[in-house]
Amino acid sequence: EYGVKEKKDQIGVVTGLAYTSFGGDILPVEVTYFDGKGKLIVTGQLGDVMKESTEIALDYVKSKAVEFKIDPAFFDKHDIHIHCPEGAVPKDGPSAGVTLTTALVSAITRMPVHANLAMTGEVTLRGNVLPIGGLREKSLAAHRSGISTVIIPKNNVKDLDEVPEIVKNDIHFIPVETVDQVIQEALVR
Amino acid sequence: EYGVKEKKDQIGVVTGLAYTSFGGDILPVEVTYFDGKGKLIVTGQLGDVMKESTEIALDYVKSKAVEFKIDPAFFDKHDIHIHCPEGAVPKDGPSAGVTLTTALVSAITRMPVHANLAMTGEVTLRGNVLPIGGLREKSLAAHRSGISTVIIPKNNVKDLDEVPEIVKNDIHFIPVETVDQVIQEALVR
Amino acid sequence: EYGVKEKKDQIGVVTGLAYTSFGGDILPVEVTYFDGKGKLIVTGQLGDVMKESTEIALDYVKSKAVEFKIDPAFFDKHDIHIHCPEGAVPKDGPSAGVTLTTALVSAITRMPVHANLAMTGEVTLRGNVLPIGGLREKSLAAHRSGISTVIIPKNNVKDLDEVPEIVKNDIHFIPVETVDQVIQEALVR
Amino acid sequence: EYGVKEKKDQIGVVTGLAYTSFGGDILPVEVTYFDGKGKLIVTGQLGDVMKESTEIALDYVKSKAVEFKIDPAFFDKHDIHIHCPEGAVPKDGPSAGVTLTTALVSAITRMPVHANLAMTGEVTLRGNVLPIGGLREKSLAAHRSGISTVIIPKNNVKDLDEVPEIVKNDIHFIPVETVDQVIQEALVR
Amino acid sequence: EYGVKEKKDQIGVVTGLAYTSFGGDILPVEVTYFDGKGKLIVTGQLGDVMKESTEIALDYVKSKAVEFKIDPAFFDKHDIHIHCPEGAVPKDGPSAGVTLTTALVSAITRMPVHANLAMTGEVTLRGNVLPIGGLREKSLAAHRSGISTVIIPKNNVKDLDEVPEIVKNDIHFIPVETVDQVIQEALVR
Amino acid sequence: EYGVKEKKDQIGVVTGLAYTSFGGDILPVEVTYFDGKGKLIVTGQLGDVMKESTEIALDYVKSKAVEFKIDPAFFDKHDIHIHCPEGAVPKDGPSAGVTLTTALVSAITRMPVHANLAMTGEVTLRGNVLPIGGLREKSLAAHRSGISTVIIPKNNVKDLDEVPEIVKNDIHFIPVETVDQVIQEALVR
Ligand SMILES: [Ca+2]
Ligand SMILES: [Ca+2]
Ligand SMILES: [Ca+2]
Ligand SMILES: [Ca+2]
Ligand SMILES: [Ca+2]
Ligand SMILES: [Ca+2]
Ligand SMILES: [Ca+2]
Ligand SMILES: [Ca+2]
Ligand SMILES: [Ca+2]
Ligand SMILES: [Ca+2]
Ligand SMILES: [Ca+2]
Ligand SMILES: [Ca+2]
Repeated sequence: EYGVKEKKDQIGVVTGLAYTSFGGDILPVEVTYFDGKGKLIVTGQLGDVMKESTEIALDYVKSKAVEFKIDPAFFDKHDIHIHCPEGAVPKDGPSAGVTLTTALVSAITRMPVHANLAMTGEVTLRGNVLPIGGLREKSLAAHRSGISTVIIPKNNVKDLDEVPEIVKNDIHFIPVETVDQVIQEALVR
Repeated sequence: EYGVKEKKDQIGVVTGLAYTSFGGDILPVEVTYFDGKGKLIVTGQLGDVMKESTEIALDYVKSKAVEFKIDPAFFDKHDIHIHCPEGAVPKDGPSAGVTLTTALVSAITRMPVHANLAMTGEVTLRGNVLPIGGLREKSLAAHRSGISTVIIPKNNVKDLDEVPEIVKNDIHFIPVETVDQVIQEALVR
Repeated sequence: EYGVKEKKDQIGVVTGLAYTSFGGDILPVEVTYFDGKGKLIVTGQLGDVMKESTEIALDYVKSKAVEFKIDPAFFDKHDIHIHCPEGAVPKDGPSAGVTLTTALVSAITRMPVHANLAMTGEVTLRGNVLPIGGLREKSLAAHRSGISTVIIPKNNVKDLDEVPEIVKNDIHFIPVETVDQVIQEALVR
Repeated sequence: EYGVKEKKDQIGVVTGLAYTSFGGDILPVEVTYFDGKGKLIVTGQLGDVMKESTEIALDYVKSKAVEFKIDPAFFDKHDIHIHCPEGAVPKDGPSAGVTLTTALVSAITRMPVHANLAMTGEVTLRGNVLPIGGLREKSLAAHRSGISTVIIPKNNVKDLDEVPEIVKNDIHFIPVETVDQVIQEALVR
Repeated sequence: EYGVKEKKDQIGVVTGLAYTSFGGDILPVEVTYFDGKGKLIVTGQLGDVMKESTEIALDYVKSKAVEFKIDPAFFDKHDIHIHCPEGAVPKDGPSAGVTLTTALVSAITRMPVHANLAMTGEVTLRGNVLPIGGLREKSLAAHRSGISTVIIPKNNVKDLDEVPEIVKNDIHFIPVETVDQVIQEALVR
Repeated sequence: EYGVKEKKDQIGVVTGLAYTSFGGDILPVEVTYFDGKGKLIVTGQLGDVMKESTEIALDYVKSKAVEFKIDPAFFDKHDIHIHCPEGAVPKDGPSAGVTLTTALVSAITRMPVHANLAMTGEVTLRGNVLPIGGLREKSLAAHRSGISTVIIPKNNVKDLDEVPEIVKNDIHFIPVETVDQVIQEALVR
């Protein structure tokens, strides 16, 4: 069932954290690819801001292809599909930026992502990580799901004082300034 | 007439189950293909969520083409049409995911689907089957239509206690965790 | 004038039957083609459901090209235009399925359609004919127009008891289960 | 100024007749073409029905290219632009069908159209001319503009009794059943 | 600042005249081009009618390429961008037709436009100039901006009696019937 | 955190200034590119006017490619992505024109932009800089962010009297008439 963490390290699957009017929730991102012509398919009832996040994530990876050891020609010869289950639940906001970028890099480089890890943070086109809202609720959702590590934007460290002690005892928070740091922490090597 | 089960095993035709404000109903899915350029045509007055389900189903099959023994070049050289009769009835929701995926695999591999079988379940991009709503009403509709086997998401097993005994006496429920299991059960070999 | 039947057998022209708030009416379908790139042009102020019916009809013919003795390459090298006069009258619903499919086959194979014939019925993607509404009103319109034969879905036979005796004396009703039967009856050979 | 007839025979310019809430009016149609890739450009604030009329007109000419002595390859290598001045006045309805078709044939074959001629009539995809509304008002507008000949649908002959005698004395009405007859009458040879 | 006339003859820049609810105003049109594939880019918050005017202007120039000594292949190998500053002010109406056409010809032929010149007039697809509204307000705006010559549609000559004597003393009005005359007057040779 | 100036000279990143109902704010623009087919991707919840500004900026650079020492073929072989963080904040208006143009030139020519610099101004298609609103609020935001130099349109010099003395003591204002002057001032050589 969704709402529980991944059971083992997987490729192209990253656990994000959402903040909705019902509280925090686990927001998995799945990425796959196949022979194609460079199309990006996005599903999961994503709103306009989150759709833009998928474009920013993809184009960040494209512009850093060499650094990520990805053949630039890869993007021309494949279609990439990004899906956020559950398919009937509308989702929006920029805070899945780190999750989307990490899932893309994992899927394309075939490097798995740590199963016990969740993350949240807006990403800019040059890879900066911007602060997000709802850190308390997101942390509670991660805790409920058995997550042991959560990557957060450095500018949200000041909000950790609103996170309950019991959560902070169980979860290791990793503050980051760039999405490159996120990928460094998330991928199993 | 629709609302009755298929009379014999067919290729590219799978019986789904819908849950509407009028109760449960049979929701057949038809898939065909022909020479083309890789276009996906979707008809049957499908809503946004169900249209996304068709994209997820197709791209799941594309990304697993080798496992399904499908030539990856198939998708480039054909157009695929997915239709859900009756054409004037609006349909939506993610729970036709297993039905759409199975109909696609059956149509492309030319393997027939068991006629007495119905199914329901959301599918994620990596092939996980997520729980659905209205299991009781869907089961009643399957029963009325003479279905003998219904594939359901494993996370809906807990909802079987709401299904009448008379239905459970006549129908064999198969719980699944992945769409690969669904296809394994559904295709006649 | 429209509202009267065709005077002689024609190619690519089939008389359908519509059921509107003003009663039944004749609904001719015209199909033509010309050098092109595989585009489908649809005119006549068709609603969403009827536009989907044109796609289902076309793709049924494409997927059965060999059976209809049509060169599959035909569709790539031509544009096909489907028009339903009168151009200012909005039209919708799935019941023109048989009419659209027959007009397409007639236009492409250059086989004329019987002039005294009208038809109604939804078509599914595998060629099944589903029942329609307004059989009584459609029959009256066919009768007023001098039609002598009307093809109807087999599941509408039960509705013939609502058709006046005078109409049943003049019109021969042919019940069908598949659109292949429709084409068999409609085309002049 | 518009609202006056053409002063001399012209190529690709035909005088139609419109019927608006302000009465009848002259509705000129201009067609031109140039090197291109088969695109149809339509301007003049045309409504949905009239835009469809331009597609019907163009595709009728395409499907009859040989009869009109037009090289079928013409349509692939040119873009065609249809414009209805005055650009700020919304226009709609199917009755410009004959005007649009005649203007297209004149433009492409480089045969001029009689300057003193106006016309009105819906055209179907096989070239039938269907009756139109507002014959009285359109005739008055033609008369005010100095038009000497008006082509009308045969099914509108019955409406000529509503046209004032003074108009019928000055204008020669030509009833037609097909757009081929219209073109025969309109083009200067 | 806009609202003042051009200081010297420029290529691809023409001063139009707008008539808004705030009175008359200067409406400059800028045209540029670059290596491309035949795309037309239009900016400046233009409304539907004015967007159509840009298409009419471009296609008029295309269809008269030879007369304007423009290589017809030019249009295939370049993208053309038409912009009307100020970018946040919505603009609409057909009366910029002469301005748009002149700016296009100037940009493509690299012939400058007289700096002290303004113009207004709708253009039809065959190059006829149709009358416009607001001549009085437009003339006042031209006068305020130091314009010495204004090209107007011949059918607006009758409206010059509403233009103040002081304006008529300073501005030379040139009535035209065709956009070819406009271009003849506007371009510096 | 955004709302603070860049810490060092960067490529493809320029600090603009926005004027919203909440006052002035820093509006960074990020530009990147990668192998592609000439597509422009724009993200950051930009409104219609600001989207047009990105097209004007890009096409200005394209039409001046030679002057900027950019290979004209560059634009065909790459996709360019322009992003304005923060991704959830809607942004609009023409005053980012100078910022967008400078960021594009910096990204493509790989020349860094001075870190302590901010700018505001509408750009026309020929590179003229038009005045903007909210100079006072924008100057205050720049001051709060530690900016030492602000480029403004020459026509806004008259508005500097509304800027507090303390701001004018700390910030050097550079008035410009063309975007070429902006680029001259902004790029580190
Ligand atoms: Ca959930
Ligand atoms: Ca705090
Ligand atoms: Ca049903
Ligand atoms: Ca339960
Ligand atoms: Ca009728
Ligand atoms: Ca009955
Ligand atoms: Ca008029
Ligand atoms: Ca009458
Ligand atoms: Ca102004
Ligand atoms: Ca007057
Ligand atoms: Ca901010
Ligand atoms: Ca001031």
